[in-house]
Amino acid sequence: MQIIDGKATSQKVKDEIAAEVAQIKEKGGKTPHLAAILVGHDGGSETYVAAKIKACEFVGFKSSLVRFEDTVTEEELLAKVEELNNDADVDGFIVQLPLPKHISEEKVTDAVDYRKDVDGFHPQNVGRMSIGSPAFISATPQGIMELIKRYEIETSGKHVVVIGRSNIVGRPMSVLLSQKGYPGDATVTVCHSRTANLNEVCLSADIIIAAIGAPEFVKAEMVKEGAVVIDVGTTRVKSDKTKSGWKLKGDVAYDEVAPKCSWITPVPGGVGPMTIASLLQNTLKAAKNEVY
Amino acid sequence: MQIIDGKATSQKVKDEIAAEVAQIKEKGGKTPHLAAILVGHDGGSETYVAAKIKACEFVGFKSSLVRFEDTVTEEELLAKVEELNNDADVDGFIVQLPLPKHISEEKVTDAVDYRKDVDGFHPQNVGRMSIGSPAFISATPQGIMELIKRYEIETSGKHVVVIGRSNIVGRPMSVLLSQKGYPGDATVTVCHSRTANLNEVCLSADIIIAAIGAPEFVKAEMVKEGAVVIDVGTTRVKSDKTKSGWKLKGDVAYDEVAPKCSWITPVPGGVGPMTIASLLQNTLKAAKNEVY
Repeated sequence: MQIIDGKATSQKVKDEIAAEVAQIKEKGGKTPHLAAILVGHDGGSETYVAAKIKACEFVGFKSSLVRFEDTVTEEELLAKVEELNNDADVDGFIVQLPLPKHISEEKVTDAVDYRKDVDGFHPQNVGRMSIGSPAFISATPQGIMELIKRYEIETSGKHVVVIGRSNIVGRPMSVLLSQKGYPGDATVTVCHSRTANLNEVCLSADIIIAAIGAPEFVKAEMVKEGAVVIDVGTTRVKSDKTKSGWKLKGDVAYDEVAPKCSWITPVPGGVGPMTIASLLQNTLKAAKNEVY
Repeated sequence: MQIIDGKATSQKVKDEIAAEVAQIKEKGGKTPHLAAILVGHDGGSETYVAAKIKACEFVGFKSSLVRFEDTVTEEELLAKVEELNNDADVDGFIVQLPLPKHISEEKVTDAVDYRKDVDGFHPQNVGRMSIGSPAFISATPQGIMELIKRYEIETSGKHVVVIGRSNIVGRPMSVLLSQKGYPGDATVTVCHSRTANLNEVCLSADIIIAAIGAPEFVKAEMVKEGAVVIDVGTTRVKSDKTKSGWKLKGDVAYDEVAPKCSWITPVPGGVGPMTIASLLQNTLKAAKNEVY
């Protein structure tokens, strides 16, 4: 069994981006600029946005943060989105989700200029990804694709079982891995809560992508000897062994599953760290006009 | 074995639309208007566009046809698209594919206002379908969904095998049937030319969607007793038994497969006739502003 090290890979991606940004600046090019809109004070969102800003600093991007209290109106938020759409200095921006209930996430997502939509949530990017055109692909699926590539995991003709059909992970993973080329050309099965014989389906998988958000859902009995297991789950569970009082659990019962795997991503330190690397990659692509 | 009769179902859909249009007109409402752009004189395209116009007449839509010789420039074509985008009387329009090689189909498809894109080819519609938002769904997948609905075929928890990953059939079918709700909630496997053990995968299917474009590809040995088989293939093959000198063949070896099926679509008379019904449904939705 070998570990797919997302932390190290993420650092490698960031180092590469930093080197490229340094070159761009040396040649007198424009510094890539990622902006983020953060509404309210959700703990998870605060942490995530802070990490994004830190990562921008590391690679040499300009970053800016627009904060709103959670009393902001939808109209005010949309006006700010429009402002960033029209701000020539901003290459890409994100609106950190979730948003307060009185604001339509769909409306806000749709309002972002898809050419600056480095989160890849705009229908235009989802659609282009689906038909195989250049697109901003959202952070988690892109991070998984990057891990598969960098660890040279064979996908062509393999049976991939994706557990979960969410718009941000399960669905895009099933599309990307069944498309032509590498990493792709896999036979992909999408499973979910209505799947009848999940254990049996998983047992036939060469590669399992677990993205259900249920801690330790995937047990050893569901995994074939030699399978590759990508664990997308990150559920906070209470723990008396950590200072914070909680720890992150993946969707895979790691201790019993890992010994059967050829490759496995740990939690934490697997897919998680890749998301910010993906966002930086998308921002660099936006700055270089590589997608649109 | 029972036959899913696409011809009869298509007629039923058209009758329903005709009744609704009559009501709209009676109440003094605007007549739904479908426009088509046809470039060149491709035989298949001519036939298809003529059938669309006839169908529009049947249901009481206004229809208009814009013809170009295949010497038309991309610029001229895009100007016409823009004109139709801005023509308030036109509720929906299509640009009949294929286009001559000197014109970018992607550019033209992207130029169509997605709110009038009743063919459902615009990335915005593909993306919205993928994330489960209201969208124009392209004719063939929507026609298949309509057949499944009208024949009350159970999909929840069933194993659907989609053979083919094209943007116009395989991909959207895999998305639609794995989404929440009915017809959906199926466990869906996407197979294609790189699939290793296709026979085995197909044998485990409760429902097979054959969309590969290879005549009589699906044999009896690939189909489980009692399966539902949807045949999307329509390949013209030479025949000395017809006046025209050719006949349509599906992707399924009908004679040997049909006896094993609970339900099967014939070719011709299965999925094919539903496409025009779908286009009419989309145009009516556009006229009623039901999607956007």
